[in-house]
Amino acid sequence: MRIAIVGASGAVGQELMKVLEQHGFGREELLLFGSERSAGRKYRFAGRDITVSELGATPDQFRDVDITFASAGAGISRRFRQDITRFGSVLIDNSSAFRMEEDVPLVVPQVNPEDALRAPHGVIANPNCTTIQLVITLQALEQLSHVTRVRVATYQAASGAGMQAMDELEQQYRDVLAGREAHPERFQHQLAYNVIPHIGDFDADNGYTAEELKMYNETRKIMHSDIAVSAMCVRVPSLRAHSEAIWAETERSISPDEAREAFLAFHGITVLDVPGDNIYPMPLDLSGRDDVFVGRIRSDLSHPRGLTFWSVSDQIRRGAALNAVEIAEYIIRNR
Amino acid sequence: MRIAIVGASGAVGQELMKVLEQHGFGREELLLFGSERSAGRKYRFAGRDITVSELGATPDQFRDVDITFASAGAGISRRFRQDITRFGSVLIDNSSAFRMEEDVPLVVPQVNPEDALRAPHGVIANPNCTTIQLVITLQALEQLSHVTRVRVATYQAASGAGMQAMDELEQQYRDVLAGREAHPERFQHQLAYNVIPHIGDFDADNGYTAEELKMYNETRKIMHSDIAVSAMCVRVPSLRAHSEAIWAETERSISPDEAREAFLAFHGITVLDVPGDNIYPMPLDLSGRDDVFVGRIRSDLSHPRGLTFWSVSDQIRRGAALNAVEIAEYIIRNR
Repeated sequence: MRIAIVGASGAVGQELMKVLEQHGFGREELLLFGSERSAGRKYRFAGRDITVSELGATPDQFRDVDITFASAGAGISRRFRQDITRFGSVLIDNSSAFRMEEDVPLVVPQVNPEDALRAPHGVIANPNCTTIQLVITLQALEQLSHVTRVRVATYQAASGAGMQAMDELEQQYRDVLAGREAHPERFQHQLAYNVIPHIGDFDADNGYTAEELKMYNETRKIMHSDIAVSAMCVRVPSLRAHSEAIWAETERSISPDEAREAFLAFHGITVLDVPGDNIYPMPLDLSGRDDVFVGRIRSDLSHPRGLTFWSVSDQIRRGAALNAVEIAEYIIRNR
Repeated sequence: MRIAIVGASGAVGQELMKVLEQHGFGREELLLFGSERSAGRKYRFAGRDITVSELGATPDQFRDVDITFASAGAGISRRFRQDITRFGSVLIDNSSAFRMEEDVPLVVPQVNPEDALRAPHGVIANPNCTTIQLVITLQALEQLSHVTRVRVATYQAASGAGMQAMDELEQQYRDVLAGREAHPERFQHQLAYNVIPHIGDFDADNGYTAEELKMYNETRKIMHSDIAVSAMCVRVPSLRAHSEAIWAETERSISPDEAREAFLAFHGITVLDVPGDNIYPMPLDLSGRDDVFVGRIRSDLSHPRGLTFWSVSDQIRRGAALNAVEIAEYIIRNR
């Protein structure tokens, strides 16, 4: 297997290398691509050093590549889609570029793995991090009763804005604690000691951000469902795991105990829910972990067919790199 | 007018002194009470120094006091209720001690001011900070159509755990940035770079915290309504303003424009909602301000009679001290 990563120096690119190594990928060959700025950097992988090549330096860089993971933004993915796929490489794309294209499957392996086998153009899209985390929990409930309505408030970590955003958040705290002004660059405002109710652009005329509408549109596509999701996406000063407060309405009433059983039985979910012992998922504890962690499971006091719960998941790993690698594993096992 | 503050050295006590001075109270006499530890401290008020007396040092400390503001915790309020009210002082109590007692009015002056005039025992309860912030926005909508269901996710500042909790949060960041371990004392876990889905005790058997159930019970009592509130209360590393993501269902459909008009016209609400210019309420900007700030007003994509919006308000001022002083002002004007 010849594997390539586009955007190797980014937060997701680096995590992809970790996950690929842990999952036994790329032993034969791993190609790393990046911007002109990244080209020439060396990264250690499976006992050897691999040098980042400049993406686009030659037109046949993806000849003989079997699977390419792209995580360098929607613009790069659009620009290099043909170069990547023309020699037959599957493109598992982490950007938002192709997610809503009708004949590009949008896949979360715990929910709709078989969609990955129907990719007429060889392109499979990885959903947005907040969506991946959400649909894994919703799919567990969907097995009990159809989920019709979801309200979700997010508590999103700095990592969603990239590796440098994490460094910037730390620098902001250093500046503020030293009595200096913070200089937000990768956030719209100072994030230290703040929360920012704004992730993604305000392109739609309904007042929702692009990030919030991803949670609506992507969830429907992945679950093949008429489910309606109203999201409020908020940046908080944590580093790399996202949290979500979720209210879900189902066709028949599901008890918290039933929901807990479903979460416990679901591959990819870990239940942390012993509130009396102060045990519930928190982003600080769960960075770098594989699963979606669920806790605070209880009835929605406002609706007889409502449940509410709390979930935390590593944004870079479960919300991006691991999902992409699991798509690749499913394809390899089933083609 | 003779005014007394019980718990003068706390975060709310200090804010009460500011608000009282700004509102022209206590010019004649202001008495400050505190614990043995606080007794003897001097605070500047309206051009003079006032010394904190030890609460309970003599049994007649509240003789000739007209209005007492208590903010020293539920235990102290219960213990000193008789001492405070026996000579005729009105007790405006900021703790949770009496809020749900049937003949103790629970008052937010923008919502149910007249209830403050029916206090058979001379005790009026100030609601919890998260409830005050919530009901002010819900009352604006209630004037358009009855609000039936509310889901609310909070982003609560350190200040809700007291003045020392704010210092502790800063110290946690200092420790973590210096590579030292953080030592949580006033939070269940490290709050720096974290969010903690746990505020108040888990006393109920339905999985909700006391803080979350306050939002259910207090909202119904204040609004005289069958409204049902499902809350998820979460501590975030901001310092002293709380944020809330709110979904509200109404009997008839309310458009975002109608809601905006209602918020704009409502005394005590400021609308900050120009998302294209990155204008929305944020806790860092709004510490120390009087109003409840509302933004991100839009339809609930999951429900035809749903609205969703975002609110931020100073927890110590609007969520405690200012509400209490406005209750006193209403009583004085109307008795």
